[in-house]
Amino acid sequence: MEEQQKILNTGLRGVTIASTRISDVDGNAGRLIYRGYLVQDLADRASFEEVAHLLIYERLPGEKELEQFRSRLAAERHIPDEMVAALKTRPSGALPMDILQAGVCMLADHDPDIREQSREASDRMAVRLIAKFPVLLAAWERVRTGKPVVSPRTDLGHAANFLYMMGGEEPDDEIAHFMDVALILHAEHSFNASTFSARGVASTRAHMYASVSAAVGSLSGDLHGGANVRVMQMLERIGSVDAVEQYVNDELDAGRVLFGLGHAVYKTDDPRAHILAPMSEKMCTRIGEPQWHAISKKLEHKGKEIFKQRKGIDIYTNVDFYSASLYYAMGIPIDFFTPVFAVSRVAGWTAHVIEEQFAGAAQKPALYRPESDYIGDYCGPEECTFVPLKER
Amino acid sequence: MEEQQKILNTGLRGVTIASTRISDVDGNAGRLIYRGYLVQDLADRASFEEVAHLLIYERLPGEKELEQFRSRLAAERHIPDEMVAALKTRPSGALPMDILQAGVCMLADHDPDIREQSREASDRMAVRLIAKFPVLLAAWERVRTGKPVVSPRTDLGHAANFLYMMGGEEPDDEIAHFMDVALILHAEHSFNASTFSARGVASTRAHMYASVSAAVGSLSGDLHGGANVRVMQMLERIGSVDAVEQYVNDELDAGRVLFGLGHAVYKTDDPRAHILAPMSEKMCTRIGEPQWHAISKKLEHKGKEIFKQRKGIDIYTNVDFYSASLYYAMGIPIDFFTPVFAVSRVAGWTAHVIEEQFAGAAQKPALYRPESDYIGDYCGPEECTFVPLKER
Repeated sequence: MEEQQKILNTGLRGVTIASTRISDVDGNAGRLIYRGYLVQDLADRASFEEVAHLLIYERLPGEKELEQFRSRLAAERHIPDEMVAALKTRPSGALPMDILQAGVCMLADHDPDIREQSREASDRMAVRLIAKFPVLLAAWERVRTGKPVVSPRTDLGHAANFLYMMGGEEPDDEIAHFMDVALILHAEHSFNASTFSARGVASTRAHMYASVSAAVGSLSGDLHGGANVRVMQMLERIGSVDAVEQYVNDELDAGRVLFGLGHAVYKTDDPRAHILAPMSEKMCTRIGEPQWHAISKKLEHKGKEIFKQRKGIDIYTNVDFYSASLYYAMGIPIDFFTPVFAVSRVAGWTAHVIEEQFAGAAQKPALYRPESDYIGDYCGPEECTFVPLKER
Repeated sequence: MEEQQKILNTGLRGVTIASTRISDVDGNAGRLIYRGYLVQDLADRASFEEVAHLLIYERLPGEKELEQFRSRLAAERHIPDEMVAALKTRPSGALPMDILQAGVCMLADHDPDIREQSREASDRMAVRLIAKFPVLLAAWERVRTGKPVVSPRTDLGHAANFLYMMGGEEPDDEIAHFMDVALILHAEHSFNASTFSARGVASTRAHMYASVSAAVGSLSGDLHGGANVRVMQMLERIGSVDAVEQYVNDELDAGRVLFGLGHAVYKTDDPRAHILAPMSEKMCTRIGEPQWHAISKKLEHKGKEIFKQRKGIDIYTNVDFYSASLYYAMGIPIDFFTPVFAVSRVAGWTAHVIEEQFAGAAQKPALYRPESDYIGDYCGPEECTFVPLKER
């Protein structure tokens, strides 16, 4: 009983539930690996398309393979007219993650592979989803602001085309590169809540779209992908570098948390934060609003220091901490920060769905069906006696 | 290591992950309890509305409470015109569970409580979802068949109104009662895959609609809610009572399963199957197609007998086994069997989301974040060395 109590309602922390070949998160070393490669090497030297290929097809593509893969993604860079019509029925104040979660299910209507259960069909559905996430979101950004939907450009890379379809102008190389790197850094992170949701749905033999839609729902939560929104709101509330120290103390006095500092897994700085920080600095300077990066930097420093002083605990920056100011300076609307996360993570989700569906025969995948401990009552005058309506 | 291997990729079987006050499934005794009451007592003596109240508000309602609760459900029995317009953009061949999974997210657009995180707001969202599931599905059935959407009737009970909005005619008392009982029997079943999905999404602090939409996706799988569809397809393939024995042997020869026989939890007949069987018999007789029940009955008998002979294993009927022929005889389209399951189970899902969000302070709910074991490679000439594009 003692032992069992330990694992009740603690979010499965420390419970190893599956083997995976997709990624390795070593929280103590601050090391994140996608299929054998360090995330910082991928961010420095590969493109999002290469990383997506790595995640889905289990290896980095050669030159010709990459060219073909880019062409396939570009060819899938559209959503049906019916879906644009459906977007137009939705109120402009709808939450973008609700738009995306619904939109993924609607894409299923038009996928010719939807009833197929082969590995090849799943691969094709994964590629379509990766290609269409940015298209769907960009279409919504245009529709909700009353602007015409921008047609995709097949000559641009994945990241650049996303920015182009959002804003209607071709981004310069620096911004396109920053988006590409951000997409690489957010693409995969093992059994986090949203990936676990996708795998759980796939374990029932539900299709790829049903699984990925569930992951979008999971990512929308404040404790998960919603955190980068909360970081930006926090920076806006702080407003200036001078106000940082007071803010940290006030929040800790009130028993509240500092968003973007601390992570369930990392016991040192998240390796992704180190790559995002200089990009955030450059972009904030570039738009003439260096304060957002400066506040972040001081908040990191003071947050760590004061937390250590007051609670004796080391806290570390996570991926959401510098992505907030970076996205803001890139002109991404704040309520699109989490959808941008999804545009990246869909590569990891689809890879995990495929692994859940087709893991080697040595491992036996099965419908997720954990146990629970009933601690409720056994009602009635005698155990489980029904009480008729008139006697209640 | 030995111990850990046992729990890898086996769907969390035998892993107790949470405490709950909502339901108790005793698979050995064949006993299912909703908040202290036996499911067979609820099916015999309560209505679906009473059971929904029990699940959400943690007690059976008194007479006045029940009257108020019925009125609230009836008052929420509508979906926005924009959603009907969105349904009209979807192809008539869309999978009904995809319609429902998307539709739940779209309902979020119109809920005034969507940004609220109080228990009261969650209760209200739960009631709205329970009220609107049948409305959304009935609207889709009408739209996809080119018929006008039927306006709800507030004077009918929940089950009767659902049938009325689907078919355009008021059902007689017997059919309405059978639907009511079926809804009671499917309303809750502890931490099955779809409920676990809903709770996992809610654990991120995502909202009620995001969580319930994920559960719909999970229920759509063949190994979960999709099983009742597979049962009916199996009955149609068998075609006559005389063909049952041969069918069972052929399927076992081919290494395939018999749908609706066997369950992850029950080691005896599912108590719900015993209640559904006589309803199936009555309905099949009533429509002049007694063969569907007769095939089911013989299949149950022969399936159990032959399975025992050939494999030495006892198998038992589960909830999907007799619900298939019952729904068929009630005139429900086969691809709506799983959606009808969802119309019922939404009561359980919403109760679980509320429990995940607001479990007592003694239990500390947390973001789901299980561990996994990385068994992939560490690529490159030396561990994790990146290989540039030109050298691949």
